[in-house]
Amino acid sequence: MTSNNNIDTTVNGKEQAEAAVPQDPGRRKFLNTAALTGLAGATLSVGLASCKQETTPATGAASAPGAAAAGAAGDMRVERAPGELDDYYGLWSGGHSGEMRVYGIPTGRELKRIPVFNPDLLTGWGITNESKKILGTKPNGDLKYRTGDTHHVHASYKNGTYDGKYAWVNDKIHSRLARVRLDTFECDKITELPNVQGFHGIFPDKRDPVDPNINYTTRVFCGAEFHIPLPNDGRDLDNPEKYGALFTCVDAETMEVRWQVRVDGNMDLCASSFDGKLAACNQYNTENGVHFEDMMSAENDACVFFNIARIEQAVKDGKFTTYGDSKVPVVDGTQAGNPDPKTALTCYVPVPKNPHGVNASPDGKYFISAGKLSPTATVIELEKVLGFFNGDVASTKDCVVAEVEIGLGPLHTAFDGRGNAYTTLFLDSQMVKWNVDAAIKYYKGDTSVKYVVDRLDVTYQPGHTNASMSETMEADGKWLGVGNKFSKERFLPVGPLHPECEQLVDISGEKMRLVADHPVWPEPHDFIIMRRDIIKAQQVYNPDDFPAGIKDASESRVERNGNKVTVHIGSQAPMFSLREFEVKLGDEVTVFLTNFDKVEDLTHGFALPRHDINFIVNPGETRSVTFKADKPGVYWYYCTHFCHALHLEMRGRMIVRK
Amino acid sequence: MTSNNNIDTTVNGKEQAEAAVPQDPGRRKFLNTAALTGLAGATLSVGLASCKQETTPATGAASAPGAAAAGAAGDMRVERAPGELDDYYGLWSGGHSGEMRVYGIPTGRELKRIPVFNPDLLTGWGITNESKKILGTKPNGDLKYRTGDTHHVHASYKNGTYDGKYAWVNDKIHSRLARVRLDTFECDKITELPNVQGFHGIFPDKRDPVDPNINYTTRVFCGAEFHIPLPNDGRDLDNPEKYGALFTCVDAETMEVRWQVRVDGNMDLCASSFDGKLAACNQYNTENGVHFEDMMSAENDACVFFNIARIEQAVKDGKFTTYGDSKVPVVDGTQAGNPDPKTALTCYVPVPKNPHGVNASPDGKYFISAGKLSPTATVIELEKVLGFFNGDVASTKDCVVAEVEIGLGPLHTAFDGRGNAYTTLFLDSQMVKWNVDAAIKYYKGDTSVKYVVDRLDVTYQPGHTNASMSETMEADGKWLGVGNKFSKERFLPVGPLHPECEQLVDISGEKMRLVADHPVWPEPHDFIIMRRDIIKAQQVYNPDDFPAGIKDASESRVERNGNKVTVHIGSQAPMFSLREFEVKLGDEVTVFLTNFDKVEDLTHGFALPRHDINFIVNPGETRSVTFKADKPGVYWYYCTHFCHALHLEMRGRMIVRK
Repeated sequence: MTSNNNIDTTVNGKEQAEAAVPQDPGRRKFLNTAALTGLAGATLSVGLASCKQETTPATGAASAPGAAAAGAAGDMRVERAPGELDDYYGLWSGGHSGEMRVYGIPTGRELKRIPVFNPDLLTGWGITNESKKILGTKPNGDLKYRTGDTHHVHASYKNGTYDGKYAWVNDKIHSRLARVRLDTFECDKITELPNVQGFHGIFPDKRDPVDPNINYTTRVFCGAEFHIPLPNDGRDLDNPEKYGALFTCVDAETMEVRWQVRVDGNMDLCASSFDGKLAACNQYNTENGVHFEDMMSAENDACVFFNIARIEQAVKDGKFTTYGDSKVPVVDGTQAGNPDPKTALTCYVPVPKNPHGVNASPDGKYFISAGKLSPTATVIELEKVLGFFNGDVASTKDCVVAEVEIGLGPLHTAFDGRGNAYTTLFLDSQMVKWNVDAAIKYYKGDTSVKYVVDRLDVTYQPGHTNASMSETMEADGKWLGVGNKFSKERFLPVGPLHPECEQLVDISGEKMRLVADHPVWPEPHDFIIMRRDIIKAQQVYNPDDFPAGIKDASESRVERNGNKVTVHIGSQAPMFSLREFEVKLGDEVTVFLTNFDKVEDLTHGFALPRHDINFIVNPGETRSVTFKADKPGVYWYYCTHFCHALHLEMRGRMIVRK
Repeated sequence: MTSNNNIDTTVNGKEQAEAAVPQDPGRRKFLNTAALTGLAGATLSVGLASCKQETTPATGAASAPGAAAAGAAGDMRVERAPGELDDYYGLWSGGHSGEMRVYGIPTGRELKRIPVFNPDLLTGWGITNESKKILGTKPNGDLKYRTGDTHHVHASYKNGTYDGKYAWVNDKIHSRLARVRLDTFECDKITELPNVQGFHGIFPDKRDPVDPNINYTTRVFCGAEFHIPLPNDGRDLDNPEKYGALFTCVDAETMEVRWQVRVDGNMDLCASSFDGKLAACNQYNTENGVHFEDMMSAENDACVFFNIARIEQAVKDGKFTTYGDSKVPVVDGTQAGNPDPKTALTCYVPVPKNPHGVNASPDGKYFISAGKLSPTATVIELEKVLGFFNGDVASTKDCVVAEVEIGLGPLHTAFDGRGNAYTTLFLDSQMVKWNVDAAIKYYKGDTSVKYVVDRLDVTYQPGHTNASMSETMEADGKWLGVGNKFSKERFLPVGPLHPECEQLVDISGEKMRLVADHPVWPEPHDFIIMRRDIIKAQQVYNPDDFPAGIKDASESRVERNGNKVTVHIGSQAPMFSLREFEVKLGDEVTVFLTNFDKVEDLTHGFALPRHDINFIVNPGETRSVTFKADKPGVYWYYCTHFCHALHLEMRGRMIVRK
């Protein structure tokens, strides 16, 4: 059977599901009024079906954390005594906060905010010359953009697991890809993708499709949702059928855009295969609609597979075009342009109604695509997709080895390395645990198989989920994070803007066990959870990495070149090496500050009143700022980062003479 | 005795303290290399004495949280099961992140970041026209400042305790005072103080000094550290002895500056009396030095008391001056200008060496001033200060009723409402619990009295501390927060920039009990901890509060006035009421967005690619942005704040025609 036959085109399916599952009435009431606002409206008729396989859901209000859970294996304590470390790094998207975040798992403690697309007052990200260079500036020196919207964080791979080198995150607003170094936990490169809007899904590749020696990440794949005129220079404004969307490949090391593929429909999330041969992106809006009811009129969209080796060969062979000013080669990945599977660059495997997440199972065999507007998960066997590209599999449909009902509003899937998948059900506000092999058997016809293992109510509206080491060959099935979009009454009220609710679930046993609620600043989207031994953090900078820095207080100086003044200062608690410097009104002043302190954690700051300057220098680091001395008088620069008993006295005077 | 007699002018005192107290050697080694860098240098000779009253410190590595503590009273669990609420709101300064933060106590969960001086991508603070008006703009419409450095958060009072109406926080970089509404947890006003630099300490008053009916906050007092030429327009650059510092009073409701007082030395932290008659500010740099060794050469600085009623009468009587363009009346509060106590506006009570924190005991009797570079706390009796102003107390020194040694580097003091004070010892990396009455007895001569009750190692370098309801008449002695500046090995490493370490201590019993370490984004300075019943949060906006908003989708429209275009859009999940709008290349476009959704937590966002626009609208709210349509083409605005199963499809087209 396929679930398509069972799709109900009314919202009654939702009510059936409610009737079948005993729930706290208040909770369900909330779902009805919030999640279904509009969906239940008279103008809409969205396909939502009931789920036939039910289990008794665990209650959202779990037993007190720390209590032993039936079936829990090993030491699954969520608490940590003071000084006790976490076991995992969680790398979280910061949504429209523009940042990336690092959480300790299992405690959920926020270890760091990493400024990425967001100018940051504390660190001086977007204020220092070095960070402005990474962020990009306008001709007048101002930042090109001050907004960003991060969704998906993924990290570099080696030998099928994380290598702790890089993480990447997207900016949906301005279609940028950022890279974060996982030794310093700082952003080091940002690339703006040409020819696209609504860049959303990303995934690094895991090995090279051709060179067997490259068993690590060298590419990052990027999906883009919004179809636009190509190029978007004022042409085709009124012809949406001419709009196009692209799938993009960025070089993991240089961060330059390698190539793009023009596709049908809108590209959502991405996945990559462990053998390096395939990338995939979920497709929605096959219809090319510009209004949302048009975007969901078709019964099927697709999971679009990209044959990486063939695409790169096509680029080499010059079989590409370019758009507008962009030099990036764009190959044709539309269905119309790829009629012969044996030479096709793409393979459109049908998936029901606006699929959202696509996730690679840790055994390397499957991609799982979640239906979003269909209550189903679709299991696609990669061996069959490769078979299709070889002409051995007759139809793209034959790549689907299971399509089973799991619940309402499935979005993202995580894995435990024991053959189970965990999928968020947005409309049900549940996590469903289901067994992939059992689902395949059921789909083949053995309807006696129970593929749904467990359900857990979460609160509320789960979007993303991930598990410890989930999309690596080392998926360990310990902790599952669930990113809930609404927190409602889970925390003390703090005004109209609510935090979101990240919940932590112990998945070490047969039953899922909810252990903690964590409020978070909106809006975490996806995240990854990485074992702590993988990260080799650098705690103090090597001064040699900063050739512009001075090595000793004796090198402190003020240099003048016309009206351009360069000031070299060192900081060593509790002193700046220059305790005053003089400039003339109207000078353009550049201050280089080197932190001479070498003790871990001994960071200094530099704030300059009325000149809008603040930044920090970590031990061994040098950073610079440039500003205009446009007001006469005395301006005390001071250390903002508590460093010493005499920290308050750590200051100096910039004297601006008329 | 006074401790001044015991001050050791070498760092040997430090070594004595180390010898006396059994410690983890690694931990002490860290203190030597980090905290004392510079202090131990040959060029410095800082007065640091050993502490004569020792107790056996509790170990920093506490027993596992949740374990019953000897002497702990009541339900002092730190954990909360999923869905279980915290008992207290913690309002935390965000330091040079520029924000205020709300934590749940005792869990330490971050409930909200409140954008204040920091432009914020998520909310659109600094992007929307409404927030730009509060933050202040340059003539070209850009924000006047994009940096800020918050230190001290304090809240409004009524009848001697918090009323849950407002909180205030300073910006040290640009000398601004911000107010946050405690119903919406949003900043509603910002005031830039004239004539000052390095504005650091704040405290609201608690009642009016004259009108007995006003038993609530109507003023906010502000200390400013850096002495500057007055006015700072290029004069007196080379004459630091002519520089001056001011103490400022801001109207709590209008947020206008009422008056300023010129003082001797630099003003640090502030306190206010429960009777409304006195405010105080710690003074350091009596020497008027511009280099830090000069700033600490004198044995004594002072706690400067301000006679509020007399100052306001002097302003009424026209006994003030003004500086530069500022119209704010400035009265003379220098010692030279106030020789007669009976008419004096100020009273300089001597306190040893660069005191930092000054805190009002909840019984209303004392201000406690911490020595910073002296190992002492000074207890000042307010009745005696009032007596001095009446001519009944001969010397300012007589206002001191205790000055006792408590440990190295005392900074801030909290209270438990049971007569005990808890002071951070920055250099000792300890909290010391001491009894105020016992200290007074000891100081009077009864050296048999043990005033030090307990010591607790904290990790590391504690700056600020506060306890639940500490500086109110309802101090309840349950939880103590300690803001540690260095976290070192307490958390998983995240690169050269370390989080800081906020530790939570159960103070319900005789012994302090460390229960949790929380990493926080730098740099929390001071904070307050408020019972949750005091806050009456507003969870959904009243649309009537936004006259610019539209009430219904039928009011959606595009209006043109020359090249200025105004667009009125509503949002209701999963749709914008205008699914496309057209403008001409070069238009100045203002978009008003009203959130029609009324369900709590149903926030929508509005991002516009390539135009650097993102902001949110909470339920019932209207916000606007203005930008230039300077690129032809199709630009999809989309909802950034997950709202619905069809959230990804919630978008529309801005079509820019050439």
